[in-house]
Amino acid sequence: MAAAANSSEGQRSGNARGVSILGATGSVGTTALELIARFGDRFDVVALAAGRRVERLKDLIERFRPGVVSVAEAADAAELARTLGPDGPQVVHGSQGLEAVATAPGTDIVLSALVGAVGLEPTLAAIDAGIDVGLANKEVMVVGGELVRRRATASGSTILPVDSEHNAIFQALHGRERDHVRRIVLTASGGPFREHSAEQLATVTRAEALAHPTWDMGDKITIDSATLMNKGLEVIEARWLFDTGPDAIDVVVHPQSIVHSMVEYRDGTVVAVMAIPDMTIPIGHVLSYPELLDLGHLPRLDLAAAGSLTFFAPDPQRFPCLRLAFEALRAGGTMPAVANAANEVAVARFLAGDIGFIEIADIVGAAMADHEARPYDRVDELLDADGWAREHATAFATRGIAAGVR
Amino acid sequence: MAAAANSSEGQRSGNARGVSILGATGSVGTTALELIARFGDRFDVVALAAGRRVERLKDLIERFRPGVVSVAEAADAAELARTLGPDGPQVVHGSQGLEAVATAPGTDIVLSALVGAVGLEPTLAAIDAGIDVGLANKEVMVVGGELVRRRATASGSTILPVDSEHNAIFQALHGRERDHVRRIVLTASGGPFREHSAEQLATVTRAEALAHPTWDMGDKITIDSATLMNKGLEVIEARWLFDTGPDAIDVVVHPQSIVHSMVEYRDGTVVAVMAIPDMTIPIGHVLSYPELLDLGHLPRLDLAAAGSLTFFAPDPQRFPCLRLAFEALRAGGTMPAVANAANEVAVARFLAGDIGFIEIADIVGAAMADHEARPYDRVDELLDADGWAREHATAFATRGIAAGVR
Repeated sequence: MAAAANSSEGQRSGNARGVSILGATGSVGTTALELIARFGDRFDVVALAAGRRVERLKDLIERFRPGVVSVAEAADAAELARTLGPDGPQVVHGSQGLEAVATAPGTDIVLSALVGAVGLEPTLAAIDAGIDVGLANKEVMVVGGELVRRRATASGSTILPVDSEHNAIFQALHGRERDHVRRIVLTASGGPFREHSAEQLATVTRAEALAHPTWDMGDKITIDSATLMNKGLEVIEARWLFDTGPDAIDVVVHPQSIVHSMVEYRDGTVVAVMAIPDMTIPIGHVLSYPELLDLGHLPRLDLAAAGSLTFFAPDPQRFPCLRLAFEALRAGGTMPAVANAANEVAVARFLAGDIGFIEIADIVGAAMADHEARPYDRVDELLDADGWAREHATAFATRGIAAGVR
Repeated sequence: MAAAANSSEGQRSGNARGVSILGATGSVGTTALELIARFGDRFDVVALAAGRRVERLKDLIERFRPGVVSVAEAADAAELARTLGPDGPQVVHGSQGLEAVATAPGTDIVLSALVGAVGLEPTLAAIDAGIDVGLANKEVMVVGGELVRRRATASGSTILPVDSEHNAIFQALHGRERDHVRRIVLTASGGPFREHSAEQLATVTRAEALAHPTWDMGDKITIDSATLMNKGLEVIEARWLFDTGPDAIDVVVHPQSIVHSMVEYRDGTVVAVMAIPDMTIPIGHVLSYPELLDLGHLPRLDLAAAGSLTFFAPDPQRFPCLRLAFEALRAGGTMPAVANAANEVAVARFLAGDIGFIEIADIVGAAMADHEARPYDRVDELLDADGWAREHATAFATRGIAAGVR
């Protein structure tokens, strides 16, 4: 996929890596494209998928000259194709558009940065085509981890985790024997309510929950950080990314978010990977791997200035979502998909002001209690479980509200 | 070198690694032999060198059945040979004895665990024979690092650092590209006087200085920890072990001694290697590398129980020895040998009660000021510089005392 030669950013040298991005206008996509612009000669933007932010996508087309672009809606695609004219990129849309971007010829790595289970199928398409994947979309592994892992093994596609925690684990495992590992330790900021009592958690408001201290994230992830469900979903991801049993994964709360995660080896050595909390670093790692970009323009981690790194065990009583995620992982099969979907519904209802903070875990727990985990071979089985869980969680949330619960 | 078959610990399986130890009755040697006894089928003790602790060496011969043993004195060697009889190991002594142990046939790795510059020549003998070296004797690198590095490159001998800091750096570099490294960060406990004012340091006593908080070490190293000269010598070692310029090595004080050291990469990622402070871990790493022993019998690092890891910059005003070590490294050639020898004399005089704590740095600084660094090619040039520095430091210390200085 040769790019147009008008833009210096779009010029492709012989060794440039072809990058396609699912979620080009989101936070991860934007950060990735800033890095690609900075290291223009190392990368070539092959294809970009956005959702409904068509104006933003037009800017990106101008700057990066991709060969293929995709938007969510057919009408937007038609309008975009008309505007760009015959010299513009191929314009596609919808789920087929996502797959076209994920498998665009010339793609060496797909940055899978959509939000939600919608990213599963295009990511699998890239994997089946043997294309490496930079994985930022956590639902891909949470919902379909077993399937994704199996198909990546079959095709030889390498999955490089973008999430700072999993990227840290990937690095802490690098060059080591897997059977030397004793356990993986994910760090968690603990969220804004790590010091709250159970009583205080019952009265947490939407505004309080959105005041996350360290990372700039979307509302959904911010609430998941506050309930620790975010960490629970990361535990499930880690299990499939690193092929580790649930009993070899631990979580430790580390409010400073400087140690991004750790691996403990069987001789007692713990390898910790640290950095300032800036997604540029793991995104750059994944895009350039095994090369390493010189990100000298970023502030450096200054431990003497940070002063103190603290650690404590998470409390499964006050933060039941973490416990539920471990249970979903142990149940296996479709259960993680159900936990994830029920959580999505519950968080949306909390953000809408319909339910209280601690009811998020109640809804997830109720969906899991009413679901029998099934093994799966196909994406549609996962999407069935996902759909069932959404209906169930919606009904439960609505019944709870109707009954005046909390 | 086949070992006698009477002891199960001494039996050598086909894949056992042949280990010879310089300094078998010291702290590192003892810990290594405990590990070897625990993992008996993995190791074969080929040769052991002790100094004057002949009774202790006899116990080790009984347990581990080495083929060659060495002691310091000819009389001890003769007596030992008589006692052990014709079925015992070959008994050697003196500097030739050390070289015989370091190059004993069947040796896969020599644990170089003598104290002082006496270890330089036998360690070089092992290196020249292409035998891998587990290096615990820091003077080998401090005094002769440039020479050692050159000869190891020529022979293909791998030098594996036993010191917890350098072992941590070795692990943090493992599997990575050297040109991706931005800097090496050595951690320092800061010693018992890290909070002392300059005035308080002037009145530190021998007893106070020997009350080191974390590691159980010899008196010399304990004093070096208190002055930060220990860290300065480690900076010099790191320069040669890892072929890193002096400006790419930093020191950070970390009183908990849990992070053993770190490597910062050019993308801002910092890989930190942590463990409980127990020399069993780095010694086991070095002896079994690239295999990794399962040290499940040791306490595990519990960060939640540790609670807080703190870091701060060292103060070169209050701890001038660290600054002097960097200066010696930058001056190069024979200067590190001079700094090391002057420090040995100064510490001995401090331990003898002859001089004050802050005069240790004065003596090192004076020796360095009066020495012109020279390039070197041979060990005897280093030993000349070492000898000059000892005389100079002794004279300076004695003059200072005679003149009533402090």
